Amino acid sequence: MRVEIWTDIACPWCYVGKARFDQALAAFPHRDEVEVVHRSFELDPGRAKGDVQPVITMLTKKYGMSEAQAQAGEDNLGSQAAAEGLDYRTRGRDHGNTFDMHRLLHFAKEQGRQDELIQILYRANFAEERSVFTEGDERLVELAVEAGLDAEAVRTVLADPAAYAEEVRADEREAAQLGANGVPFFVLDRTYGVSGAQPAEVFTQALSQAWGERSPLKLVDQGDAEACGPDGCAVPQH
Amino acid sequence: MRVEIWTDIACPWCYVGKARFDQALAAFPHRDEVEVVHRSFELDPGRAKGDVQPVITMLTKKYGMSEAQAQAGEDNLGSQAAAEGLDYRTRGRDHGNTFDMHRLLHFAKEQGRQDELIQILYRANFAEERSVFTEGDERLVELAVEAGLDAEAVRTVLADPAAYAEEVRADEREAAQLGANGVPFFVLDRTYGVSGAQPAEVFTQALSQAWGERSPLKLVDQGDAEACGPDGCAVPQH
Repeated sequence: MRVEIWTDIACPWCYVGKARFDQALAAFPHRDEVEVVHRSFELDPGRAKGDVQPVITMLTKKYGMSEAQAQAGEDNLGSQAAAEGLDYRTRGRDHGNTFDMHRLLHFAKEQGRQDELIQILYRANFAEERSVFTEGDERLVELAVEAGLDAEAVRTVLADPAAYAEEVRADEREAAQLGANGVPFFVLDRTYGVSGAQPAEVFTQALSQAWGERSPLKLVDQGDAEACGPDGCAVPQH
Repeated sequence: MRVEIWTDIACPWCYVGKARFDQALAAFPHRDEVEVVHRSFELDPGRAKGDVQPVITMLTKKYGMSEAQAQAGEDNLGSQAAAEGLDYRTRGRDHGNTFDMHRLLHFAKEQGRQDELIQILYRANFAEERSVFTEGDERLVELAVEAGLDAEAVRTVLADPAAYAEEVRADEREAAQLGANGVPFFVLDRTYGVSGAQPAEVFTQALSQAWGERSPLKLVDQGDAEACGPDGCAVPQH
């Protein structure tokens, strides 16, 4: 079974929701047969790479919240994160463009290190004092190496803005096609969807339902087909 | 709708089957909403990179055919290919390891050039006198450039045997999970399967059936979810 999770590193509910999903998955009897794929969604795609703001300032400027409202939101997030055993800095975080992180996550997928990298990026953005936005590429290199990636390869990806860009865009187009207008957005075997940081029980229910309805491919025309396999190519007798 | 096609460049029925599928797709009313993804399957994964043989020799040695049988098979393939308007050299082709071509196809996917590259690789392997196996990386660079890829980027991918290797292996594991033991193998929205180079009408039928059964995601718990979107993050009122 395959679970695709559309997410943004700058999305606090994605951080919390992923922890809730992971709890449900860890207790799911068929967890070893579940493949998790992270897919890209940018909350703020129009923001330029160097344009970094304190989160509270972004919330007041972009969404017209009062500073008290913005801080109450962060406090609530802090409590919800703590309830999942996650660290969350409710003051002093900043906000910026996440496109390069999404490109790196696609590179990490190729290397079998995607889940490691996303956990490290979440923790770095939500729990650590150092910014993931203001220290340049070398900060991302450091975090990627921690996830088991090769530093030189990561530098090459970061230095070429086209690398994995099309993969990020394709994920974003697919999110729109699937009707996701917010994240986190979980899709199980392209059949069930879970929108938002729902409680772990909802993920448990979704995993069970999707698992119960797994079905083998329906083959169209089972007749003798001309095909090649490990034992050679079928040579029909005409 | 998404159609995944497991295929090998060394597989003549994949070449013929792809042309039949493309005919069906070209006439399909919803063709603009169909995404085609090529997936990797190696017929001969144990063959070392430099181990190249004439196809007829490979067929007699590996599958114990007589030379006459092997040539009759090639003649039959030539006729079937011609019926689809494809050139096919029935004598003098050679056979080798296709792992690097699969790696390149994954790179091409990222660049939005996968279908272009696969068509060019098929034509090069089945219709052209020059080999895709014996001239080294520069032959593949030349073909990839023809597909619209950047020569330097292609050289970088080819020079690093780990690049996209995990993607190729993941495709191969998935083929096994889906029950594909030969190629071409077509999977429509992970619901319908078509095995082998079936006639175009079978692909038309499969496309129509899969299209008719498309269904929106079933959302588990539609209740108010904590999520972030372009308009900010939901702050539940507790």
